[in-house]
Amino acid sequence: MRIALDAMGGDYAPVTTVEGAIEALKEYKDLSVILVGNEPEIQAELDKKACTGMPISIHHASQVVEMDESPLAALRRKKDSSIRVAIDLVKAGGADAMVSAGNSGVVMATALYVLGKLPGVERPAIAAIMPSLKDHFILLDAGANVDCKPLHLYQFAIMGEAYAKFIFDIEKPRIGLLGIGEEDAKGNDLTREAFKLIKRSHVNFIGNIEGQDIFSSEADVVVCDGFVGNIALKVSEGLAETIAKMFKRELVEKAKESGKVGSLFFKDAFKSFKKKMDYSEYGGAPLLGISKPCIISHGRSSSNAIKNAIRVAGVFHSKRIPDIISKELKEGLSRRESVAAKE
Amino acid sequence: MRIALDAMGGDYAPVTTVEGAIEALKEYKDLSVILVGNEPEIQAELDKKACTGMPISIHHASQVVEMDESPLAALRRKKDSSIRVAIDLVKAGGADAMVSAGNSGVVMATALYVLGKLPGVERPAIAAIMPSLKDHFILLDAGANVDCKPLHLYQFAIMGEAYAKFIFDIEKPRIGLLGIGEEDAKGNDLTREAFKLIKRSHVNFIGNIEGQDIFSSEADVVVCDGFVGNIALKVSEGLAETIAKMFKRELVEKAKESGKVGSLFFKDAFKSFKKKMDYSEYGGAPLLGISKPCIISHGRSSSNAIKNAIRVAGVFHSKRIPDIISKELKEGLSRRESVAAKE
Repeated sequence: MRIALDAMGGDYAPVTTVEGAIEALKEYKDLSVILVGNEPEIQAELDKKACTGMPISIHHASQVVEMDESPLAALRRKKDSSIRVAIDLVKAGGADAMVSAGNSGVVMATALYVLGKLPGVERPAIAAIMPSLKDHFILLDAGANVDCKPLHLYQFAIMGEAYAKFIFDIEKPRIGLLGIGEEDAKGNDLTREAFKLIKRSHVNFIGNIEGQDIFSSEADVVVCDGFVGNIALKVSEGLAETIAKMFKRELVEKAKESGKVGSLFFKDAFKSFKKKMDYSEYGGAPLLGISKPCIISHGRSSSNAIKNAIRVAGVFHSKRIPDIISKELKEGLSRRESVAAKE
Repeated sequence: MRIALDAMGGDYAPVTTVEGAIEALKEYKDLSVILVGNEPEIQAELDKKACTGMPISIHHASQVVEMDESPLAALRRKKDSSIRVAIDLVKAGGADAMVSAGNSGVVMATALYVLGKLPGVERPAIAAIMPSLKDHFILLDAGANVDCKPLHLYQFAIMGEAYAKFIFDIEKPRIGLLGIGEEDAKGNDLTREAFKLIKRSHVNFIGNIEGQDIFSSEADVVVCDGFVGNIALKVSEGLAETIAKMFKRELVEKAKESGKVGSLFFKDAFKSFKKKMDYSEYGGAPLLGISKPCIISHGRSSSNAIKNAIRVAGVFHSKRIPDIISKELKEGLSRRESVAAKE
């Protein structure tokens, strides 16, 4: 499988992107990586590494999209950006999937414009993987669609199920709807209507999931609109960081009192904990509903995050997840699952 | 000041409510507490305590509202519930403020029905206090209004500012709007319109605040609709608990390896941390926009949480926060701050 990697995307690119690509190639033998972006810069990074003979190449792109650039401006003015060129490569068949840690709004808009939606998909969604007490869960939409209709949430449930099956390797993923009460009738106008649609669908729907339960509950997929999903994702990130900082403060205080043994013990426990909470372990977030595999990774991605996003891109392509999503949506339509939303 | 406490509200009532009342009376000398609920049960708890001579009394109420009861059902069928009787006491002038750790939806509906809104208020909101890296911040609406209009968010900003002034003792609280991008134009339809209204108002508006920044940012008040606010609040709670559990696991593992010194050190650091994260330290959440002080406390409230909610009720009454909210809304109206929302 050939992965086009936006080598210029992310806060620490191209250092982390080149490193991540090499780490991925060491671990996953069926992949090749095309580094898309400024050739001299990328080559300078590659020269520092021992990667002779690896299936890695550079495809030059002269422009870079900034993190605060608007999708519309980028689409108009940056036709030779590393994001655009990587997606063009997928479109033209030169790559099977693309990965970017750059401006996620621009990746989404460009993927939509160049590759288009899968047949039947109303709105593509970002599927983020988050850690839970037992394992992980998928949160979608994590920020692509800030204003949604019930039909969109129904489709997110279908698409999330198709993805969860393969990424978690489970037959009947449990689907929950992010809400503010467990009962059917609780929620806002949007979730109450979406509840009815998802309940009527073929997915293993376990009902409303409250905010406090997403990390400990039984849901493999948590469905919500992109505004709520982005807030939930970012609040979690912010809180985890805040807790880490608070703990560090305690560490400094306590180390003064109890000396080195305690301090070492603490550092050790903290490291294991951080690994569990580290989003980079869980790979990137695919754009579900786009016709070809596009995986976005966190702007602050480490090389490990890039490596895992490349792994997800590979799985997405080899398991033919876009085809499965198409099939599920079509079957749902033929069963008239979402008929009420159309009326 | 006379505080009517719903002695039957909360998962551990009346044990924790009676204890919390006594703790509050020991600490705050200008208060008296009326315990509202099942007299024999409350008396049995009081008999276990040394509280002779304290300004504490019982007001009997024969019914108890369940945690999953609907507001409508409770209003119709539970006219002698501890929630209803406590609020009736405030209405009749027998108490200055009420506190409940019971069903928050029922408290809100009953307060609205019995006490009514302040003049000019469209929707009362729940103002939750949350910990941040530096200190605390207010999140509102934390769950009262699941579907909001821009005008409601504007009013939450005004009400939140009035409350923050007194609870944090700062002259110009910084108001932020919970969103998914820092720029003015980012957000969903609701927040984009609310942004314009709040920007035109007299409050010290610092713009959009992203989810990851609420715990570390400069905002004293974070405004959002009740659905999003409830999700943000509950996700934070759930994650903090999950992290605590994960840490405990690490503790057990590491203690096996490093022995007792490290384990004690860890426990100590963990305790300080838990205190900082413990919502019970921050008191209850007032219903802003109701004509008299009504404070809700977490269903899982400890006696410490009840004590702090009683303290907040006292401040709310003595600082005349409802009067200040009324005045601010009236002045905003005369300055035509929210005129666009009416058109």
